[in-house]
Amino acid sequence: MKRISILGCTGSIGTQALQVVDFLRDHLEVVGLAARSNVDLLEQQIERFNPRMVALSDEASADLLRTRLKSKDVKVFGGRDGVVQVATMPEADMVLSSIVGIAGLIPTLEAIKAGRNVALANKESLVTAGSIVMKAAIEAGVCILPVDGEHSAIFQCLSADEKQNVNKLILTASGGPFRGKSIDELSDVSPMQALNHPNWTMGRRITVDCATLMNKGFEVIEARWLFDMDISKIDVIIHPESIIHSMVELIDGSILAQLSTADMRLQIQLALTYPERRRSSVPYLKLSQVGSLTFQEPDMEQFPCLRYAYEAGRTGGTMPAAVNAADEVAVEAFLNRKIGFLDIPGIIKQTMEAHQPVLNPALEDIMSSDRWARDFAEKVILDT
Amino acid sequence: MKRISILGCTGSIGTQALQVVDFLRDHLEVVGLAARSNVDLLEQQIERFNPRMVALSDEASADLLRTRLKSKDVKVFGGRDGVVQVATMPEADMVLSSIVGIAGLIPTLEAIKAGRNVALANKESLVTAGSIVMKAAIEAGVCILPVDGEHSAIFQCLSADEKQNVNKLILTASGGPFRGKSIDELSDVSPMQALNHPNWTMGRRITVDCATLMNKGFEVIEARWLFDMDISKIDVIIHPESIIHSMVELIDGSILAQLSTADMRLQIQLALTYPERRRSSVPYLKLSQVGSLTFQEPDMEQFPCLRYAYEAGRTGGTMPAAVNAADEVAVEAFLNRKIGFLDIPGIIKQTMEAHQPVLNPALEDIMSSDRWARDFAEKVILDT
Repeated sequence: MKRISILGCTGSIGTQALQVVDFLRDHLEVVGLAARSNVDLLEQQIERFNPRMVALSDEASADLLRTRLKSKDVKVFGGRDGVVQVATMPEADMVLSSIVGIAGLIPTLEAIKAGRNVALANKESLVTAGSIVMKAAIEAGVCILPVDGEHSAIFQCLSADEKQNVNKLILTASGGPFRGKSIDELSDVSPMQALNHPNWTMGRRITVDCATLMNKGFEVIEARWLFDMDISKIDVIIHPESIIHSMVELIDGSILAQLSTADMRLQIQLALTYPERRRSSVPYLKLSQVGSLTFQEPDMEQFPCLRYAYEAGRTGGTMPAAVNAADEVAVEAFLNRKIGFLDIPGIIKQTMEAHQPVLNPALEDIMSSDRWARDFAEKVILDT
Repeated sequence: MKRISILGCTGSIGTQALQVVDFLRDHLEVVGLAARSNVDLLEQQIERFNPRMVALSDEASADLLRTRLKSKDVKVFGGRDGVVQVATMPEADMVLSSIVGIAGLIPTLEAIKAGRNVALANKESLVTAGSIVMKAAIEAGVCILPVDGEHSAIFQCLSADEKQNVNKLILTASGGPFRGKSIDELSDVSPMQALNHPNWTMGRRITVDCATLMNKGFEVIEARWLFDMDISKIDVIIHPESIIHSMVELIDGSILAQLSTADMRLQIQLALTYPERRRSSVPYLKLSQVGSLTFQEPDMEQFPCLRYAYEAGRTGGTMPAAVNAADEVAVEAFLNRKIGFLDIPGIIKQTMEAHQPVLNPALEDIMSSDRWARDFAEKVILDT
């Protein structure tokens, strides 16, 4: 029985993770749950999974939950410290880090420092603070298991023997809902169109990031840290069917790839049960029904966010944190109809040009670059 | 420096293996070469690679070679025993078994018994005598490394950790030159059409076997032995582009696949350099240039040989040896225009119906079933 705590339990990854736990009740147990403010859903999850400890980062929501749970034997914590309590609780063998955005960084880092293996869905931890997170993981001797489909694919292809033989990592990208659209067509797409991803059901921000290809750019930076690979050795290829989730090209020209139905529960389950595999509720892939898998080069002119991410990854230091912050702000503004779709890359570009990156940053440098970039991006939006 | 002897050095696999050795001169050395009767080519190969020992199974050809090589410091053996001498020479670290047909069985088995690791391209060794060959390999503690593209792909996907997690092996098949043709169209195809494989350059018999899908059937049986997997867990899928060379489906629904340019030198090189990988002369695969990979179920009515191979594999014992013998005879007759393309499955079917299989066969049973099936198939052809 593996005991899990889930950070971000009411989000897309969190709720799917709880489906996995439900399916593997004989092997997985939930001991901790943390969310931001969704009291109703968390209350239902407590009812069903009986965790020992829960947290809501929104203090008022935590208070409300406490009054509702009076008779239940579960500790309720509030605030960011409460989330860290769940992230570091000694009863957990593993922490699923699936908080969205940079808010996931500190709890992830604390879980690692507390010696917990981490199933990582919060890519911002590595995008913004990859050097710090990976160093902490090595020092604590813990595993970071990727939950993202692309990184899980590479992890599955990359047996220990092959690590030295890698020529390139090749991340696949669906291309999102706007693949092949012209700049003119992109100029007036609505949030609803951007949220209509062809293959995956995900949270709102990541879905918009898929439409701009910024998400793929962040994945390049994430892969750089997870697999200790130079950015120049990480390629992106557009694969609209999202069946091959990523590939590893070896030095002799052989490519290993991982394929499956587009259902995140598979990757979540593998991260939670690793090093074991178990039967899952995800249907087996029938390639003859899929019929055809197609591939094309990404268009970095049409979708410059991918290019910006590569640039930020090469620059390193606090630059990716600044890009991530600007992107969070810009996507939020787009979803609230304050800016158009094509303004997103513009805001990121301006933020990058204005940012003075700190190389070899400490955590404080990353947090302050994040705050600076948010403020800067918000000012740019006000001026638009 | 790894020292290699090559059985079948003048054939398609053998000559490509020598290109690999040429490319990796600092890592691979040829110490032994064996062929059937191609004196001219073997003489050139001796000139270039300086083996210590060579053999020609045709005695007269061996005599001719001896007279030509008088001044050279190389031992020349003749006859089948000569080939076994090369297969078991103590100077070799590894034997590449790439003789075509059941003629490869005894030398392969002798190499294994002599404690040599074997790079196996001669699939008949496993098709006809899988239980004996695998038992000998276990007893001798040697590795059998697959050279066939499909089995190499599975071998590359199947890290030691995953062996227990396999749900299915999925062999890909190009479908050959006649994929999608009607029975009517198949009735009058010529040997030249059958030899025109869309993706691979191979020997004549295997190319015709690809056109009938019999080759894929033999590969199913080969995989059954190589990976110790029940026939019911081995699927075939048609994939005309021959880019994914085979796949492993794991119990959680994840599929691992190996892809590369369709160039056998990659698989040959990996078998020869294993457990190391080295840069090769095979060009890296550009999936965006390939554009599209397609998949469909095999049509076992149109191409019944695949069905017969599954049946023979399930029956086991000497049945696969009888099928292989009938196929060798039928393909030869087709290439000599004695029978039509659609007569090949007919002859195999009649042979299977007439064969009384010996279960748990000894080597003698396999050899006598082979002889019996050849005689039987030849009689059927005379009567057609």
